[in-house]
Amino acid sequence: MSPAQHLVAVLGRGVVDPDAPILSADDLGATRGDGIFEVTRVVTTEGVSRVDHLDRHLARFRTSAARLALPAPDADAWQSLVHEAVAAWHVPGEAALKLVWTRGRENVPSGPTGYLTLTAQDPAALAASRAGITVASIPRGYASDAFGDAPWLLGGVKSLSYGVNLAARRAAAERGAEEALFVSTDGYALEGPTAGLIVARDDELITSPTGATGVLPSITVAVVTEAAEAAGVRVRRALLRPADLPHSQGAWFASSVKGVVPIVSLDGVPVPHDPEITRTLVAAAGFDR
Amino acid sequence: MSPAQHLVAVLGRGVVDPDAPILSADDLGATRGDGIFEVTRVVTTEGVSRVDHLDRHLARFRTSAARLALPAPDADAWQSLVHEAVAAWHVPGEAALKLVWTRGRENVPSGPTGYLTLTAQDPAALAASRAGITVASIPRGYASDAFGDAPWLLGGVKSLSYGVNLAARRAAAERGAEEALFVSTDGYALEGPTAGLIVARDDELITSPTGATGVLPSITVAVVTEAAEAAGVRVRRALLRPADLPHSQGAWFASSVKGVVPIVSLDGVPVPHDPEITRTLVAAAGFDR
Repeated sequence: MSPAQHLVAVLGRGVVDPDAPILSADDLGATRGDGIFEVTRVVTTEGVSRVDHLDRHLARFRTSAARLALPAPDADAWQSLVHEAVAAWHVPGEAALKLVWTRGRENVPSGPTGYLTLTAQDPAALAASRAGITVASIPRGYASDAFGDAPWLLGGVKSLSYGVNLAARRAAAERGAEEALFVSTDGYALEGPTAGLIVARDDELITSPTGATGVLPSITVAVVTEAAEAAGVRVRRALLRPADLPHSQGAWFASSVKGVVPIVSLDGVPVPHDPEITRTLVAAAGFDR
Repeated sequence: MSPAQHLVAVLGRGVVDPDAPILSADDLGATRGDGIFEVTRVVTTEGVSRVDHLDRHLARFRTSAARLALPAPDADAWQSLVHEAVAAWHVPGEAALKLVWTRGRENVPSGPTGYLTLTAQDPAALAASRAGITVASIPRGYASDAFGDAPWLLGGVKSLSYGVNLAARRAAAERGAEEALFVSTDGYALEGPTAGLIVARDDELITSPTGATGVLPSITVAVVTEAAEAAGVRVRRALLRPADLPHSQGAWFASSVKGVVPIVSLDGVPVPHDPEITRTLVAAAGFDR
């Protein structure tokens, strides 16, 4: 791996040396995964950068913070930090902007820790993903209604405790697939470790319900389905089974950095792929530019 | 909160300023909870410190690393770092020694990050816990056999992704209890967020099975039950229901820093407490000195 171009900015400090340590050994984000994050895309063309849907990401950041009983992140302060970071960023192409908010230090009164990273994305890797990915279904261990009365399970929270999400991706790789699709104990397709699920069937778009399912309210799924509805396409929130995907018109993972990515096979079984629908969804998500 | 006396040592560097940052913004331990930890107790008397069961903790550390597909931590290097840290530690009383091993930096080839912290414990808080704690049962969302065929769920792994464990403790506090007892969807008492469960019934000791239950193999539980068996007490691994606890001879949470702590009530219902059994278990765990 060669180093990726990257930038770091710390709340209250501004842009800092990206290779200088910024977190103390006892930061609860590091020792307990006790914090939250957001990720969105930054596109830089001719020295000018735009940030995708920052307001929506800051709103979800605030919701995640409340769910974790963290102090509310100050939207103005974060917006200023993002603007400062983006102004200092001149790498052409696409980058991932990550916001991190932790409970702060355990041994010293510190208040929460807030920082962001901007990381250039490899255009070849992005293009390969966007051409289509192979997926393996990975049992999630929870029923599809496990999170309704159990807010402490952190369903729908973008928390720093993503160890299982990464382990699921490794399990998918062991099965020869590029990505994982989480499946509930009662047999429903939920979401990917870092992406929402969209399925086209009977000329409507179907996405996983959030709430009791524990599925994260995906901003990219919301942007796509809002555009689809505005264009007269019917959108439904419903639980499908993995076996439904090969019989659909197509299935996609939607996420803020990769955009709308066609699932070309699930557990080795081909999933239909209609490039026309993909183009429409990609454009709806704003990933055609 | 007043600052706790603490020390930090980094693998490959040794003891460092505990208030100087040591982790980069893109360390996967911090951004994804992608790493592991161990905690044990250090007791310092007249300037001499001893570390509880370091070999057993390093062995479990190694098992956790394998489960997360992390490079194996080098036991010799960690032992040296612990010895260096303990030699520099002169705070009388009990301290928590935490070892942390993360997947390292995401944007720069770095190899894993390894460090330890030593943190003085508040004697009054320890004494209050050890006198007995109130507990609330908190549903864990998983069945008691959820982890058997699903290693990616990280059952039994001491991972840095402990967000749910801390949220469960907050949920217990909202119910007016000092600690949480995780309960499976099929109604079994499993463990605490950071402690194993021991129950005395019919003059035998019962502890939760590990493996498919996802229960962490507790070193303190192992030390206590080995001593009990050596003293002729029968020990069984079996799943009990929360409702069994008020009808037992006593129930305890066992962990490496707090030791063996009696559960005095569960969901507001008193749990019997026999100080004689507690004294025996505490001594077996080595917490009488």
